[in-house]
Amino acid sequence: MDFKDVLKGNKRAIARAMSLIEDEDPQGLSILRALHKHTGKAHIVGITGAPGVGKSTLVYRMAKALRKRGERVGIVAVDPSSPFTGGALLGDRIRMMGIATDPEVFIRSMGTRGCLGGLARKTYEIAKVLDAWGADTILVETVGTGQAEVDVVQAVQTCIVILVSGLGDEVQTFKAGIMEIGDIFVVNKADRGGADRLVLEVQAMLELGQVHGKWEPPIIKTIATEDSGVEELIDGMKKHYETAKEIGILGHKCIERAMLDIEDIVRDRMMAGLLTPGKKHLMKELCKKVADKKMDPYEAAEKVLCE
Amino acid sequence: MDFKDVLKGNKRAIARAMSLIEDEDPQGLSILRALHKHTGKAHIVGITGAPGVGKSTLVYRMAKALRKRGERVGIVAVDPSSPFTGGALLGDRIRMMGIATDPEVFIRSMGTRGCLGGLARKTYEIAKVLDAWGADTILVETVGTGQAEVDVVQAVQTCIVILVSGLGDEVQTFKAGIMEIGDIFVVNKADRGGADRLVLEVQAMLELGQVHGKWEPPIIKTIATEDSGVEELIDGMKKHYETAKEIGILGHKCIERAMLDIEDIVRDRMMAGLLTPGKKHLMKELCKKVADKKMDPYEAAEKVLCE
Repeated sequence: MDFKDVLKGNKRAIARAMSLIEDEDPQGLSILRALHKHTGKAHIVGITGAPGVGKSTLVYRMAKALRKRGERVGIVAVDPSSPFTGGALLGDRIRMMGIATDPEVFIRSMGTRGCLGGLARKTYEIAKVLDAWGADTILVETVGTGQAEVDVVQAVQTCIVILVSGLGDEVQTFKAGIMEIGDIFVVNKADRGGADRLVLEVQAMLELGQVHGKWEPPIIKTIATEDSGVEELIDGMKKHYETAKEIGILGHKCIERAMLDIEDIVRDRMMAGLLTPGKKHLMKELCKKVADKKMDPYEAAEKVLCE
Repeated sequence: MDFKDVLKGNKRAIARAMSLIEDEDPQGLSILRALHKHTGKAHIVGITGAPGVGKSTLVYRMAKALRKRGERVGIVAVDPSSPFTGGALLGDRIRMMGIATDPEVFIRSMGTRGCLGGLARKTYEIAKVLDAWGADTILVETVGTGQAEVDVVQAVQTCIVILVSGLGDEVQTFKAGIMEIGDIFVVNKADRGGADRLVLEVQAMLELGQVHGKWEPPIIKTIATEDSGVEELIDGMKKHYETAKEIGILGHKCIERAMLDIEDIVRDRMMAGLLTPGKKHLMKELCKKVADKKMDPYEAAEKVLCE
C-alpha cells in the first residue's frame, strides 16, 4: 500500500496502515517512516481515569463538540485490561456509532496483545497516522489505572484525568500517582452526591503537589450523559495546549518522547539478535538449568551475552 | 551484609536485602544469586482484582488463617498505581498491623518507581528472598487492573482473581482478560446483592473459555470482613498447588519464568551499553532531530546501533 493514500484521507488505507503497524509488519514500518515528516500538527489529548468514571461517554461528547467547531477528530481507545484478546470494549463502542460514520472522524480501538511494554509506543504510532491524516485533535482514551496509563500519557500533549465521587477509598489513593500526570481534572457525574467535596479534595491535593509549574490544572465539572460541561472542558484543553506551547513544555515533551522511541527501537533490535536458532537453543537449555536451581538467571544471562 | 542472615531469619537483614534488590544495588544482586539455590520451596500465590474489591482485607484474613495452620507467611503488596511515589497504600496497610509483629510473618510493600516494565521481575525477586527465608506461602497482592497484573501473575504459582458484584459494566469487561489468568475465582462481599448472579456469570465465562486444561477453577464466595469463606479459599489454593505439581504445570511455569528472567537481564545489560558518555551525547542530538521531524526514530535507532 502507498502511504500517500493515508495523506489523501482514504479511510481504508488508514485502517490498513494501522493494522500493519500494530502487527509490526515491515510495510507498517516503512509507512510510519514516510509519514513521520507529515506529523506534528495535531493536538494529542489523553483521557484517563479508573474504570466506570465515564471516559467513553465523555470522549464521545468531546468528539461531537469538536466536530461542531469544524475540526477533524481522531479517537484512539486503548484497553490495557485486555492483554489476551486484544479486543475493544464493544459495549461502550456502540455509543460511538453516531460519529463513526462521519468522514471527518476516525476511531481506532487497541488491545495490548503483542505489545507487552510497548503499548505507549504503539499508541503513539497510531496517533501519528491520525496526525498525518490531518486530524486537528486526537483523543486517546485509556482504560485502567496502572503503569500503562502513565506510559501512554507520556505520548500526549494534554492529559485529562477523570474522577467521580463515591468510588471508595482504594480508588482515591490512585490520586497520589495520577495527580502528577493530569493537566486538567474532570469531576464527571457531577450531579452525584459528593462531587463538590471531591473538587475540594482535588484542589487541596493540587495545592500540596504544585508539580505543574506555570500551568495551574483546572478542575472542571461535567455530566457527560447530559452533555454538561463539555464545552468548558474543550476550552480548557485548548488553553492548556496554547500555554504548553508558549512555555516550552511541548518542545520538551517532544524530545522526551523521541528519546523513549529511540530507546524502544534500539531495545527491540538488540533483542531480535537473540532470535537466531543457535541462541534460541542455548536459551532453552539455560532456562532448564535456572528452573532446576543449577544456575541463577544472572549467570545464564551472561552466557547468552558472551556467546 | 551476609546473605546467610536472610536464611537465619533475621528480619532486618531480609528488609535490607530487599531494599538492595529494589535499588538494583550490586550487593543486592550478589545476595539474590546466593539465595537462588535456597529457593523453590514456597507456594507463591497471586491475589488480584479491580480496586475496591477488598484484596487487602482478604490477604490479611488469609495470612491469619495460614498462621493458624502453623505456616510461615510472606506478603508482597504490589502497587502499580503509584509509579511516582513508590509508596504503599497506607490506609490498607494499617489493617495488616495485627500480623506485622508476628515473627513468622514478613510484609513488604512495593511501588513501581524505577522498575518501569520490570515490576514482575522485581516482585519475583522479592518473593525469592521470602522463599529463601523459609516462607511456606507467599501472598502477592496486586492493585489495579492492567498489564502489570498479568506480568506479576506470571511469577506466581496460583492466581486468585477477586471480583465483587455491582462494579459496573466497564469493570466487568476486564473479565475477558482476567478469566484466562485466574486459577481460583473469589466473589467477595458475597452478602451484597448480585453476588449469586456474578457467580453464575463467571461460571458461564469459564465454560466458554475452557483454557485451564485439567484444572477447573473453583468459584468461592467470601465475606472477607467477616472472615467467611477464607478457610475454603485456602483449601482451594492448596488443592490447586498439588494439582499443578501433579500435572506438570508448575515445572512448565518455572521454565517460562526463567526465560522471562534471563531475557529481562539480557535486555538490561544491553541497554546499559547505551549509557556511555559518547552514546548519551549522540542520543541527545538524535532526539532533537527526531523531535524536529528531520529524522524518524527508526533511522535514529540505527545510528545508535551502528555507532
